[in-house]
Amino acid sequence: MLPFARVSIIGLGLIGSSIARAIKDHLPTVCVNGHDVDPDVRETARALGFCDDVTDTAGAAVTDADFVVLCVPVGAMAAVAAEIAPDLPPEAIVSDVGSSKGSVLAALQAALPHNAIVPAHPVAGTERSGPEAGFATLFHGRWCILTPPADAPLLAVERVAEFWRSLGADIETMDADHHDRVLAITSHLPHLIAYTIVGTASDMEEVTRSEVIKYSAGGFRDFTRIAASDPTMWRDVFLSNREAVLDMLQRFTEDLTSLQRAIRWGKGDELFDLFTRTRAIRRGIVEQGQDDEAPDFGRKHD
Amino acid sequence: MLPFARVSIIGLGLIGSSIARAIKDHLPTVCVNGHDVDPDVRETARALGFCDDVTDTAGAAVTDADFVVLCVPVGAMAAVAAEIAPDLPPEAIVSDVGSSKGSVLAALQAALPHNAIVPAHPVAGTERSGPEAGFATLFHGRWCILTPPADAPLLAVERVAEFWRSLGADIETMDADHHDRVLAITSHLPHLIAYTIVGTASDMEEVTRSEVIKYSAGGFRDFTRIAASDPTMWRDVFLSNREAVLDMLQRFTEDLTSLQRAIRWGKGDELFDLFTRTRAIRRGIVEQGQDDEAPDFGRKHD
Repeated sequence: MLPFARVSIIGLGLIGSSIARAIKDHLPTVCVNGHDVDPDVRETARALGFCDDVTDTAGAAVTDADFVVLCVPVGAMAAVAAEIAPDLPPEAIVSDVGSSKGSVLAALQAALPHNAIVPAHPVAGTERSGPEAGFATLFHGRWCILTPPADAPLLAVERVAEFWRSLGADIETMDADHHDRVLAITSHLPHLIAYTIVGTASDMEEVTRSEVIKYSAGGFRDFTRIAASDPTMWRDVFLSNREAVLDMLQRFTEDLTSLQRAIRWGKGDELFDLFTRTRAIRRGIVEQGQDDEAPDFGRKHD
Repeated sequence: MLPFARVSIIGLGLIGSSIARAIKDHLPTVCVNGHDVDPDVRETARALGFCDDVTDTAGAAVTDADFVVLCVPVGAMAAVAAEIAPDLPPEAIVSDVGSSKGSVLAALQAALPHNAIVPAHPVAGTERSGPEAGFATLFHGRWCILTPPADAPLLAVERVAEFWRSLGADIETMDADHHDRVLAITSHLPHLIAYTIVGTASDMEEVTRSEVIKYSAGGFRDFTRIAASDPTMWRDVFLSNREAVLDMLQRFTEDLTSLQRAIRWGKGDELFDLFTRTRAIRRGIVEQGQDDEAPDFGRKHD
């Protein structure tokens, strides 16, 4: 049994185009309509052929859909939901892929009161953006978190879960608030810090930008990957998950201040203890298949 | 012309054992003696065979060396230099691979006043430690920074440069103070921040460690690699390059506070501007061959 017969994807960037490609690979009989607000993206998507049809309006993409996935920056969710509302069949299930969930759930429920809403967050991505960056295996072995509201129809939730399982993802379900706190520490704060340090480094006066680039293999380059992620997407994530991000940032700053003090006062034991503790987390991540076990993430060494 | 005929490596961890292996590959007629303070490491090194001889004392490794490379944590440099002093031929050139250079240069000059000292820092490594972690191509296409004192004999500096070029590295020369500031931002601060956020995440009470590991693909896992680096090495780096690290940390904290304020007050334009600026640095690093151009550092997808 296919979870859905006609899927509509609004937003054909990295994630939207990866979903379309993954459907072609894993659910080849499912019909995929796509739309993107950017005419250049629509043209590229047509040329790449990962959708059966790329429509010029969002409404046209959803008229006969039984599943609609909004793959736009979280700040655009409310407007896109309002845009598709008049054309959306009442039996269609609506989902999204936003990185923060509380604000998205509220926006979708307000704009689409007659449809089942099952927000989702596939915890997967790369630093690339746009329809050319997507690929069919992006979700393999990654977690997809569903954050259905308490009154969501169970069958709708199960169909969305089955859809993501078909694409190779593992499913977890939690409420939107908990999601937003978990992702604040595992994703949003790391991005915020990476953006900050890359900014700090490029603003130095006595160390040139060319030196920063040259000697980046000492550690800095690891931060630049996520600091190359899509600016619009991340602006919206921080604004929409403000409370949780600010709370995690506060904790981080306290810990950093404590390390700063240890360095200033030469407390080597405190440093050593932390640096020993942090190795265990890496081991857990590699053991659970969430990262490459090869050194340097498997970067090529010649 | 070989730069050296008899090289002695003190400390047979990731870097020391990689140098030995690279010599075998690139300078096969050079004789390599090695020593490590840890008997288990000596035994492993003998079994792996990347040295011609592994000696039980540091002194025995250097008696007939024309080049000695100290590959120990920077906090151990002074003691190791004092230990080899009685056995060191006066014509031997002494170098090291420490990640901070001002304090190491001072320690080596004090302990070995009769030898030419040419400190070096190969900006290369992985998160792995120990003699089994090394490999011969570690330095290929990476920069090796020499920080000779102003009175270092030019010929000695050129021989050390030639040695590293033979191992595949590119050479840059600068004074120790500038090195320590450049590396504070490109390497030391990134490590400090990575250790901190991994610590912050593992101390959360309402987000479990298992959740942190599960959803680490959202960005967190990129930090865990360098936070798995050798604790002793990094404790010593922070203590020995304290002033520069604290200065860079101060700049980072100011920038982070400014972003925090932008999030709190909903200033999306400020966030967007920074997030756009930071993409350029990543492009520079990839273009200059200091990182993998494949998405996700070339991590395998599937």
